[in-house]
Amino acid sequence: MTRSLLTTNNGIPAQRQYIFSLGCPDRTGIVSTLSTFLADIGAWITEADFFSDPETGWFFTRQAVRADELDMGVDELREKFAELVADWGPEVRWKVTDTAVAKRAVILVTREGHCLQDLLGRVAQSDYPMEVAAIVGNHRDLEPLAQAYGIPFHHVPFPKDAVGKRKAFDQVAEIVDAENPDAIVLARFMQILPPDLCEKWEGRAINIHHSFLPSFMGARPYLQAYRRGVKLIGATCHYATQDLDDGPIIEQDVIRVSHKYTARDMQRQGRDAEKQVLARGLRWHLEDRVQVYGNRTVVFS
Amino acid sequence: MTRSLLTTNNGIPAQRQYIFSLGCPDRTGIVSTLSTFLADIGAWITEADFFSDPETGWFFTRQAVRADELDMGVDELREKFAELVADWGPEVRWKVTDTAVAKRAVILVTREGHCLQDLLGRVAQSDYPMEVAAIVGNHRDLEPLAQAYGIPFHHVPFPKDAVGKRKAFDQVAEIVDAENPDAIVLARFMQILPPDLCEKWEGRAINIHHSFLPSFMGARPYLQAYRRGVKLIGATCHYATQDLDDGPIIEQDVIRVSHKYTARDMQRQGRDAEKQVLARGLRWHLEDRVQVYGNRTVVFS
Amino acid sequence: MTRSLLTTNNGIPAQRQYIFSLGCPDRTGIVSTLSTFLADIGAWITEADFFSDPETGWFFTRQAVRADELDMGVDELREKFAELVADWGPEVRWKVTDTAVAKRAVILVTREGHCLQDLLGRVAQSDYPMEVAAIVGNHRDLEPLAQAYGIPFHHVPFPKDAVGKRKAFDQVAEIVDAENPDAIVLARFMQILPPDLCEKWEGRAINIHHSFLPSFMGARPYLQAYRRGVKLIGATCHYATQDLDDGPIIEQDVIRVSHKYTARDMQRQGRDAEKQVLARGLRWHLEDRVQVYGNRTVVFS
Amino acid sequence: MTRSLLTTNNGIPAQRQYIFSLGCPDRTGIVSTLSTFLADIGAWITEADFFSDPETGWFFTRQAVRADELDMGVDELREKFAELVADWGPEVRWKVTDTAVAKRAVILVTREGHCLQDLLGRVAQSDYPMEVAAIVGNHRDLEPLAQAYGIPFHHVPFPKDAVGKRKAFDQVAEIVDAENPDAIVLARFMQILPPDLCEKWEGRAINIHHSFLPSFMGARPYLQAYRRGVKLIGATCHYATQDLDDGPIIEQDVIRVSHKYTARDMQRQGRDAEKQVLARGLRWHLEDRVQVYGNRTVVFS
Repeated sequence: MTRSLLTTNNGIPAQRQYIFSLGCPDRTGIVSTLSTFLADIGAWITEADFFSDPETGWFFTRQAVRADELDMGVDELREKFAELVADWGPEVRWKVTDTAVAKRAVILVTREGHCLQDLLGRVAQSDYPMEVAAIVGNHRDLEPLAQAYGIPFHHVPFPKDAVGKRKAFDQVAEIVDAENPDAIVLARFMQILPPDLCEKWEGRAINIHHSFLPSFMGARPYLQAYRRGVKLIGATCHYATQDLDDGPIIEQDVIRVSHKYTARDMQRQGRDAEKQVLARGLRWHLEDRVQVYGNRTVVFS
Repeated sequence: MTRSLLTTNNGIPAQRQYIFSLGCPDRTGIVSTLSTFLADIGAWITEADFFSDPETGWFFTRQAVRADELDMGVDELREKFAELVADWGPEVRWKVTDTAVAKRAVILVTREGHCLQDLLGRVAQSDYPMEVAAIVGNHRDLEPLAQAYGIPFHHVPFPKDAVGKRKAFDQVAEIVDAENPDAIVLARFMQILPPDLCEKWEGRAINIHHSFLPSFMGARPYLQAYRRGVKLIGATCHYATQDLDDGPIIEQDVIRVSHKYTARDMQRQGRDAEKQVLARGLRWHLEDRVQVYGNRTVVFS
Repeated sequence: MTRSLLTTNNGIPAQRQYIFSLGCPDRTGIVSTLSTFLADIGAWITEADFFSDPETGWFFTRQAVRADELDMGVDELREKFAELVADWGPEVRWKVTDTAVAKRAVILVTREGHCLQDLLGRVAQSDYPMEVAAIVGNHRDLEPLAQAYGIPFHHVPFPKDAVGKRKAFDQVAEIVDAENPDAIVLARFMQILPPDLCEKWEGRAINIHHSFLPSFMGARPYLQAYRRGVKLIGATCHYATQDLDDGPIIEQDVIRVSHKYTARDMQRQGRDAEKQVLARGLRWHLEDRVQVYGNRTVVFS
Repeated sequence: MTRSLLTTNNGIPAQRQYIFSLGCPDRTGIVSTLSTFLADIGAWITEADFFSDPETGWFFTRQAVRADELDMGVDELREKFAELVADWGPEVRWKVTDTAVAKRAVILVTREGHCLQDLLGRVAQSDYPMEVAAIVGNHRDLEPLAQAYGIPFHHVPFPKDAVGKRKAFDQVAEIVDAENPDAIVLARFMQILPPDLCEKWEGRAINIHHSFLPSFMGARPYLQAYRRGVKLIGATCHYATQDLDDGPIIEQDVIRVSHKYTARDMQRQGRDAEKQVLARGLRWHLEDRVQVYGNRTVVFS
């Protein structure tokens, strides 16, 4: 029998924490109100980040507290927090999460395996706060990799015609939604999500684009980069939205190239940026470090 | 008459702020106490950073509030803050500063001008929160540069013998202490500060070392780097202490080199790292973003 | 009397060299022919770079030889080289230069001084292979800086109307062409070169654009970057052509930013990238390390 | 039956090439002699790199020629090349290799899998010029990973006592030498190679050290880095020699850290640098781009 490469430990941090995330219009006293709330329940804060955006007038915070120091569970915490912000208006967005509950992802792939390999390797090394519920591929190339890690692989072929493609997307959506994942990861999935799925999965669908956006949007960015003669190539991890390649950016990075690089060399080298940038951006998403406002993100990394 | 290159604007931020800095042993409720204090005086917080060090059990924070929203001055604020922390024990360290009061520096140099040029250029462009009170050189090479910027230049020759060197240092100390500067910047000053000056200027004397410390401590780091065959060279901005090249590190960066680089090439290229790293580290110091604990620094950048 | 900040040494390398540059359609035997030529004249090669572009089928090389080992001067060398390539067809491009003859530049500026300061600082430190023949500004802000370094400053005001602007450009062109410089450096010169000047100065007019091109072409790139929410900002050094912001790229680099950065913060931080990228790209141009083919560059750095 | 994750394609470049590598004392005419030799056999050069080291007076070159343009095989080429350099003295070092012959590696591991995963992922994606002949582990943790890729895994336990350890090394050497590999990769193999194996495998044993050498040599470099309070951590890929952590460096890189990082965070983040640096350095070794002289390397990357 094949042993799975996944061990039981799923990257959950040794010290259990509750994470408070909040975004709301800024006003005097918010920090104090939150701090008093946390002090009153006896919270031991281990991480606290704040950001007040001068342009939009919004306030964002993320605070981590030690779970073992509290005499209540996450559900009771949520109730109390809901009371606290009950009259803060309809715009306020918040959540309280428990690091002992592993985040779950469904990963969509095509043929190129470097991002999937990298992510699965991190999970296998208990180095990543994620469980992979399922992998969906429109080709079978990466099925053996999924099997080696003991993860269900769903093969959903994508025909070229619009109707067939739509049906394929419906099938993908069914698989994804059955898992209700915290992240739908487009790990070099070369299909464009239809608007309804972008909307349904808003803030959960994470794409890795193989260019330093907004440079080289659209198809074949490495070829575009080669033709323009740039001296750096890059990768961008962003939330998928209906505006193709234009969603809120979580993370970016670049790699130096020279005149010696063909478009194919750029593609090969660029993979290193792609997998790194996806791994970093996805981690921050899973650790509730990312908040979206308009087309931008706060990343409390 | 020579016009000075310095304009009147000294890089003070457009929006005046008061900066609260605090370091003390951590315990539950500190954040809440501080937040309540700030809320009670009606403070509008624009930046807030916190760090709780798991190893030492110390807590650090830096908070910036809008001065124009408060109905009291910085002196009254200091009084109130002193009351707040009065019974927090002898270890607590804090300060409250006013960004409208420009920080003042004395810069010590020898012959190489790239760091001095870079800093003066930033000041002249109203891009740096610093006034240069005086420049001290043990050679006259950089006197014309000081004059061009209208800054007093003091030439203090350093003899080779111990007695003469000690006298020279006493003279430097007299010039420096007359200005009571917020920063004593060793901008490629090739003399080793004696222990008593390190102690007297503790937390204010900032050195730029031309290697990625702790690699290549001591003399001629580029030659050491060349001989070891490293593929990256670097620079380190740190507080000067009695342990040469071993003070608390504020900032570091590296530059890629190859087998083509001679030691002289490394020296030339390394200057770009030196001036960048010094400019960044010194800025953070002047903006009260750095706190030292043991041999390490918290940098709220 | 004001002493100039410029010393006599103009950054010429200690070891005098002749530089051979060649670009031509590739075919078998070119390297051998060149090598035999150099061997026959007794050349001691200290640097040799080659590039064969698979897409265009062009071949490029740069070779540096020690001048002190040759029993002929650069003029004789040029004659011999001209004979060598006489029948290689009309497309071949070549030059032979002498590092003992300092390259000369005219620098165009507006108000922001960071690039000019950085370049003049490098020249003053004998760290840059350039003499600055003149500085032209459409404002007087940087005149004192030019004076401090003893360099002629020409003030050419730019009216807003098309006719006045054209006249101003003619005046600039007259000043520039009187110097016949090796480089016309647009060091944050905020005027768009008219097509005829782009053509006349082709391969010599070097611009620093304050974005990571092709991202954020056109006006106010930092504001564009801020609005798009990118996580890295950059700068691009390129040859000025009639296609605005679309000329052949010599060098690029980026700086990490976060949600904390306002557009103004990006502008301030971006200056560090701008001056570094310009300094590197311009150096390579002056050292005859750059060859243009189509809209791309070979950079033998 | 388990399918292996390895496809048949082993990362051999599409265009077959012969690679000439040469290192010898420099003198006038070498480049010409080589070029004439290559021209005479009708070689189409696609890549040519040269380096003349001013300090040691040695000359190094690497040249790639298209195999399909030559009417002889690699053996005949070697014969001809041997004749060419026959009287160049005993010091000359050279080789001619054929990119159609995949390089073979044996990988030594302990428990941490990130480097192994990364390398196997690259090989599986036909993106790396390597075949993995065998994997040796002193623990069984990574056996399933080896099996998933269909690669023989040898478990060689390492006792703590000197005699047992020596026997274990003898067993490892037997497994390695049976494969006569082009590279023996210490992919986070936490045992120190004995001097006789360093000597036997000189220029083939490649280690990844988890610090920016020469900083933090020896044990637990991340803990050392944490304690020193550095702002960047790094990794170093180098040839293993008898001087522990002091062998010729092939590649290095760094990652930015802050006061927020515990030693454990550094360890986790540092893995990203480790696997990248090892992948790059090992690739250059396998592509015959690295030549060692003294304790330094020429890397024609």
